[in-house]
Amino acid sequence: MRGIITFTTDFGLADPFVAVMKGQALGRNRDLQLVDITHDITPYQPAEAGYWLERAASYFPEGTVHVGIVDPGVGSSRALAAVACDAQIFLAPDNGLLSGIVARPGAVARRVTGTTLAGLGAIAKGGTFHGRDLLAPLAAELASGNLAFGMLGGIFKPVVIPGPPPAAWVGERLQGSIVTIDRFGNLFSNIDAGLLDCSRNWSVRIRDFELPCVDTYGDALPGELVALVNSWGVIELAEVEGNAARRLGAARGEALNLRYLRGG
Amino acid sequence: MRGIITFTTDFGLADPFVAVMKGQALGRNRDLQLVDITHDITPYQPAEAGYWLERAASYFPEGTVHVGIVDPGVGSSRALAAVACDAQIFLAPDNGLLSGIVARPGAVARRVTGTTLAGLGAIAKGGTFHGRDLLAPLAAELASGNLAFGMLGGIFKPVVIPGPPPAAWVGERLQGSIVTIDRFGNLFSNIDAGLLDCSRNWSVRIRDFELPCVDTYGDALPGELVALVNSWGVIELAEVEGNAARRLGAARGEALNLRYLRGG
Amino acid sequence: MRGIITFTTDFGLADPFVAVMKGQALGRNRDLQLVDITHDITPYQPAEAGYWLERAASYFPEGTVHVGIVDPGVGSSRALAAVACDAQIFLAPDNGLLSGIVARPGAVARRVTGTTLAGLGAIAKGGTFHGRDLLAPLAAELASGNLAFGMLGGIFKPVVIPGPPPAAWVGERLQGSIVTIDRFGNLFSNIDAGLLDCSRNWSVRIRDFELPCVDTYGDALPGELVALVNSWGVIELAEVEGNAARRLGAARGEALNLRYLRGG
Repeated sequence: MRGIITFTTDFGLADPFVAVMKGQALGRNRDLQLVDITHDITPYQPAEAGYWLERAASYFPEGTVHVGIVDPGVGSSRALAAVACDAQIFLAPDNGLLSGIVARPGAVARRVTGTTLAGLGAIAKGGTFHGRDLLAPLAAELASGNLAFGMLGGIFKPVVIPGPPPAAWVGERLQGSIVTIDRFGNLFSNIDAGLLDCSRNWSVRIRDFELPCVDTYGDALPGELVALVNSWGVIELAEVEGNAARRLGAARGEALNLRYLRGG
Repeated sequence: MRGIITFTTDFGLADPFVAVMKGQALGRNRDLQLVDITHDITPYQPAEAGYWLERAASYFPEGTVHVGIVDPGVGSSRALAAVACDAQIFLAPDNGLLSGIVARPGAVARRVTGTTLAGLGAIAKGGTFHGRDLLAPLAAELASGNLAFGMLGGIFKPVVIPGPPPAAWVGERLQGSIVTIDRFGNLFSNIDAGLLDCSRNWSVRIRDFELPCVDTYGDALPGELVALVNSWGVIELAEVEGNAARRLGAARGEALNLRYLRGG
Repeated sequence: MRGIITFTTDFGLADPFVAVMKGQALGRNRDLQLVDITHDITPYQPAEAGYWLERAASYFPEGTVHVGIVDPGVGSSRALAAVACDAQIFLAPDNGLLSGIVARPGAVARRVTGTTLAGLGAIAKGGTFHGRDLLAPLAAELASGNLAFGMLGGIFKPVVIPGPPPAAWVGERLQGSIVTIDRFGNLFSNIDAGLLDCSRNWSVRIRDFELPCVDTYGDALPGELVALVNSWGVIELAEVEGNAARRLGAARGEALNLRYLRGG
């Protein structure tokens, strides 16, 4: 069965950094499936990489090995973390990138030892590119079934980056914030659909705008601002066939709140 | 024999949307070849996606399954269309994206039924991402030979987007328009090489410029404006080692005309 | 054993040009591994493509076939060059793109003949896209082991683009220049680590700035400017968690020099 490796980095695609990681993985096993999740993470923002990696991972099959690299501390004494969760493995610098994965029920974290890496012949050539020299070879051996998760190193407590405060009901308002914005200008909030009764009618307030809930974009006309439970299970603000981020002038971190409508 | 799936969308590559479609396809079959045609289609412009998908498809082998997604109506009652043509299969929302493919001789279109999708366990999780929840699993089963085209649903007449008027001779002028512009600023027209006698000399008029025909870029000097039959079989305007779109100030939809030169 | 093909071009990813090359390769062999090195080479700059292709190639396994395409002279009489080096094969238009590879010890260059291409059924359809019509099929047959390097054509001397003057010691200063800038604004110089004694202390002068050497980014604080031997074995200038190119206002070609520190 072919192994699968995904990559989530802040490397961009203009430089050959992603490609040489793939070359190093293929040097271990030419049959691997290599999938780019994104390489457009904001430079030096491990939390952003973790946010998308956590959401994307569940759409990949069991046994997938996910490599996340946003690594301003590369070459310092920061460890490499490996986390097993939901029959997948996540590899990343131990800088908080995997905070969301680590917090999941059943997640087990191990600190990758130098002995493990040396045993694989994975050696850092210079102090600035562990993705190529250490993580890609490690991922290839794990995805190929040549190395067991339990052999990577001892169980440890990875670095955790505190996230924004979770969404919560305060009186009749469910208060949350914008966590990311997609290519279409749709605003993703931190409000999980599970926090509300979606069978009722509700609306979202952000700045001076009040956005009514719909089931899908097609339920409103082009140019209308709407709120909906999106395909990632969170409340999203959108302008139908437009760009809500531009229209609302809203950015990451911005507060919003949701309330039920009378009779809804 | 390994199945091949291509993807043509307006999703961009900064968000993990393309990756999760691939994850869902690999969950069905880890041996698939997954190829990105482009994810930079202008948001909400299905005709643009269809233009490139139609032109790129013929360079892929028989049996390839092409997924095209520009889907402002996702979650509404719009159907999913499947078209078989030239021993390949095309899948897309039924919004006109496949207009060009549908118009080809021998093309057969089927409306994908909910029963087919349910039988595959392809279920929409939320109303905004059918590419991930429905089309990727469907493409994987088709490309893997687990599902026959004829089983997808009944034959139907997909939505067709009327294109720009086709190029045509009006007196001594072959009149056409610019349909797209590539990364190099080369302007692709809607004038097929088959509409003229390429063994004669001709030139193209656009705005106040008259561009002489050449066989290839190297037949003129850097900075010269030229017209040629390009590798897609259409008349193209180019600035040698430059950017014709910038130089001419020309955009999509702009008119141009071609005439034979005296003695040509 | 699965064949591997890499692609390095100035085609960008917005147009389907890269995809149709892949389609043509898969039409020859569906089992190939296809890897993008970069498609963001500055248009019409073959030397830049060669720079990255040369550095990236060594991280791929033996037998890899590398295709490099920056081809302003496409369709003219320029040849197609094939170079064997370090158990890999490089294919490119003969315009200097492979200058660095050709200069390596043991490199052997052959001029691909029209007979070879015709024998493969690789025929140019129009004069502007040899990547799709000639190089992709050729790479597929080579990577699949269906065609031997020695059968491509006679040995010849490819075009060589003269590079910038190599870095050299002038008195107590090791003088070099900036050759490229990565996504993070890190400046890569042409000074190979082998030109200095890295166990001593040294600093780099560029414009009015003097940058101290460190082992890795983590050895300095965010915002500090540093010089280091990077993972490609060359001297690099960086701003920790910042953008040195912006901070220094420096561009490609800019001069810099390195000196040992007293007592270093």
